[in-house]
Amino acid sequence: MTTPQPSPDSVQLTADGQLRHFLTLDGLSRELLTDILDTADSFIEVGERAIKKVPLLRGRTVVNLFFESSTRTRSTFELAAKRLSADVLNLDISTSATSKGESLSDTLLNLEAMASDMFVVRHAQSGAPHFIAASVTPGVAIINAGDGRHAHPTQAMLDMLTIRQHKGRFEGLKVAIVGDILHSRVARSQICALNTLGVEEVRVIAPGTLLPSDAEHLGCTVEYDMEKGMRDLDVVIMLRLQKERMQGALLPSEQEFYRLYGLDRSKLALAKPDCIVMHPGPINRGVEIESAVADGPRSVILNQVTNGIAVRMAVMSMAMGGQVTERVSRLGEGQP
Amino acid sequence: MTTPQPSPDSVQLTADGQLRHFLTLDGLSRELLTDILDTADSFIEVGERAIKKVPLLRGRTVVNLFFESSTRTRSTFELAAKRLSADVLNLDISTSATSKGESLSDTLLNLEAMASDMFVVRHAQSGAPHFIAASVTPGVAIINAGDGRHAHPTQAMLDMLTIRQHKGRFEGLKVAIVGDILHSRVARSQICALNTLGVEEVRVIAPGTLLPSDAEHLGCTVEYDMEKGMRDLDVVIMLRLQKERMQGALLPSEQEFYRLYGLDRSKLALAKPDCIVMHPGPINRGVEIESAVADGPRSVILNQVTNGIAVRMAVMSMAMGGQVTERVSRLGEGQP
Amino acid sequence: MTTPQPSPDSVQLTADGQLRHFLTLDGLSRELLTDILDTADSFIEVGERAIKKVPLLRGRTVVNLFFESSTRTRSTFELAAKRLSADVLNLDISTSATSKGESLSDTLLNLEAMASDMFVVRHAQSGAPHFIAASVTPGVAIINAGDGRHAHPTQAMLDMLTIRQHKGRFEGLKVAIVGDILHSRVARSQICALNTLGVEEVRVIAPGTLLPSDAEHLGCTVEYDMEKGMRDLDVVIMLRLQKERMQGALLPSEQEFYRLYGLDRSKLALAKPDCIVMHPGPINRGVEIESAVADGPRSVILNQVTNGIAVRMAVMSMAMGGQVTERVSRLGEGQP
Repeated sequence: MTTPQPSPDSVQLTADGQLRHFLTLDGLSRELLTDILDTADSFIEVGERAIKKVPLLRGRTVVNLFFESSTRTRSTFELAAKRLSADVLNLDISTSATSKGESLSDTLLNLEAMASDMFVVRHAQSGAPHFIAASVTPGVAIINAGDGRHAHPTQAMLDMLTIRQHKGRFEGLKVAIVGDILHSRVARSQICALNTLGVEEVRVIAPGTLLPSDAEHLGCTVEYDMEKGMRDLDVVIMLRLQKERMQGALLPSEQEFYRLYGLDRSKLALAKPDCIVMHPGPINRGVEIESAVADGPRSVILNQVTNGIAVRMAVMSMAMGGQVTERVSRLGEGQP
Repeated sequence: MTTPQPSPDSVQLTADGQLRHFLTLDGLSRELLTDILDTADSFIEVGERAIKKVPLLRGRTVVNLFFESSTRTRSTFELAAKRLSADVLNLDISTSATSKGESLSDTLLNLEAMASDMFVVRHAQSGAPHFIAASVTPGVAIINAGDGRHAHPTQAMLDMLTIRQHKGRFEGLKVAIVGDILHSRVARSQICALNTLGVEEVRVIAPGTLLPSDAEHLGCTVEYDMEKGMRDLDVVIMLRLQKERMQGALLPSEQEFYRLYGLDRSKLALAKPDCIVMHPGPINRGVEIESAVADGPRSVILNQVTNGIAVRMAVMSMAMGGQVTERVSRLGEGQP
Repeated sequence: MTTPQPSPDSVQLTADGQLRHFLTLDGLSRELLTDILDTADSFIEVGERAIKKVPLLRGRTVVNLFFESSTRTRSTFELAAKRLSADVLNLDISTSATSKGESLSDTLLNLEAMASDMFVVRHAQSGAPHFIAASVTPGVAIINAGDGRHAHPTQAMLDMLTIRQHKGRFEGLKVAIVGDILHSRVARSQICALNTLGVEEVRVIAPGTLLPSDAEHLGCTVEYDMEKGMRDLDVVIMLRLQKERMQGALLPSEQEFYRLYGLDRSKLALAKPDCIVMHPGPINRGVEIESAVADGPRSVILNQVTNGIAVRMAVMSMAMGGQVTERVSRLGEGQP
């Protein structure tokens, strides 16, 4: 008999269903996702003010723990934390204490002992943020900023916010995700969020070599031919081609990929006339997407970036709130 | 027929003549330069307080975008921004997103979409900050922190502030700039500022190999012999010898350069008795300047550093004010 | 006849005995050390608040000057400064201005001219912080964050705070320091602090090859056999094995060291039943200490980390206060 692993949602939620970590979208309810989107909406307005600050995390310490370097993602979390008035410590762990032979757990326990309130974790290994939240420092709010191929839940939620802003709803939408599904942590999170929020159809469009073997079970339809796949779309989400992960000759060439799966004006013309175009960035122009489309009237790529700050502010403030609730309830039970 | 390029001053000024970017001193009026110096003067006092902060940029996001590394210059802008109460994001762009194949424009548009208010830009290529302000992110205040050989306008303005502090005026002054004029972005900005502010004479002193071919047209007199050039000076500004740019054997040796163009006590004795000595730093002692002079009673080198913070606070707060004016006026015209 | 060097305590204290730098524990009185511990105690409570900030250094500029990289130590000082509401500038000096040929003094004088209030200095060379405080920038509060083999006084003081928290007193305690005494800057500071605070016995336990030649004169008893050395101990402080400094074959092997001087449960059983276990971190599990001991009920290793922030807040705020006193008194005497 094996001990059952705690399910992710039991780790990331308090007893009364509030967020206390943000690890994955798996198992989160439509109500909670909608709550995140509503909270993010309220922060959009903060970004438009002259004084772009709210005091929700004032005096709190947020540590950006990037075991895998990503200036772009780290910057968005750093700005989100600062606009919540937190103190921010950036640690590039690949070059610090762990190189002195200290274990990951010891590094984290040390940071917790410095009275850190939140770790934003980016890690090349799937499940690392979940492991930290479940087994190392459950009293520190853990925010997953991307783990291996597993999840990138804040990216998926900013995409959902962008869709809701432009379409006003999820019901009845047909949404396609195009490109390197196999290596994409964001695709997995997007498929989960879109299904939870109740779109009509999630479609993945990719060559067979860039699809996971279990694609059919992910809750989406699969289309190998992009021209067929574009039909009736309300939203098309292009993925970044992870060039660094493509050295195993999964594709003949970038040119060939662009011809078959790159989003140009002619392919976009096959979708609905008001189909919006999304991309998580950074864009490889002429590889996944034509410049005229990336910069065109249907592109909402820069809106996604703006929404990224708001969504990160939302999950950070909600998880901090959940941690406080949890501590209060433990105190009520006489636990430390 | 070619489209006329917008002149720098039309890019960096609002319709009513306020600063909204700070790219170059070319085309700025004596009134505006004086306004910058007066504003900087008021910030000098802030640096002397126990609480060295004013709330002028509170809640604003300032991004230090250094495409060319310079810890010293970056630190002064970082401190200036923090003393204006801004949130600061430091990005060393050479090691970040652009290395993933993203274009410069895309990086900047992304940062703008994160609701950045100001970019402090250092770039090895002349004109990069101007290009960004004119064509990429005009709604973000761009501050030039040094571009190629073109300009380093905050350095020139801190020099002007230092001269005014010690001489009380510009009229009637004879000012020399000594050394590697050819490779110096700061010399070009200094000559422009000194002429605009109305000194009697700007003199450059250098060997022919370290002078630009158009030296005579820069608005200065040229002197190859330093001993002659020191006569009647009120101010002598030594330039740093850019050793890394000198590999083409433009000079026989550092020793030879020091003998001919290094500022020692005997050469300084040829200037007016109250001539002040300036240097942008970092100093190469015994190459451009004798230690006894750098540390002597006529040196105002450390005053320049102190003034650097005040001048940067001044242009940052003025450009932010100009951006706000511009936005308000666009709103009044019903533009986005 | 030679000029007498100022003693460290005359450098780091004001005329009326207040701290104005924090360089070493040598020469500091029991009253002053107790004052630091009492102040730190008051900051422990700050770390437990939701809003972990006090305004003591608000508007002050603290520069972390690390000539020797240490992410862990730098992070604790950065957090301490931010919780005191200071503005913090992190400079990794090994990679910055000094590489352009600028002298250490010029770098420091420049930073002082930027209106810096405090330098936190880590340097591989013994005496560097003292030299800076005595001869370069006496008007900037210098905090020693570790210099060569000489001292690491904030680490020693956090250890004292941890002992006082758990034992309630220093009188009558027997405290051992175990391991690489020879290469440890922290051991030297600990021995000094323990003696000043009046413990009954300071014992060092190490092989002869890891003891300084003057061990007998350091104010401690020496024991080569750990099993004997553990007897009657109230506190055992393990040192980190500096692997990088051990290449001269001072020890047969890590395994051999662990067998003889590693703290495992059986050796710990020889001490008093309530003996606490300390370690400055990062821990080499299985080299200096058994995991079961490091994570066991007598370990106070993570308390040390928490106390480290409080102690750093204490010495930073006290030194800042001493600098202000000094300036006021100089003004009273009509000095600049």
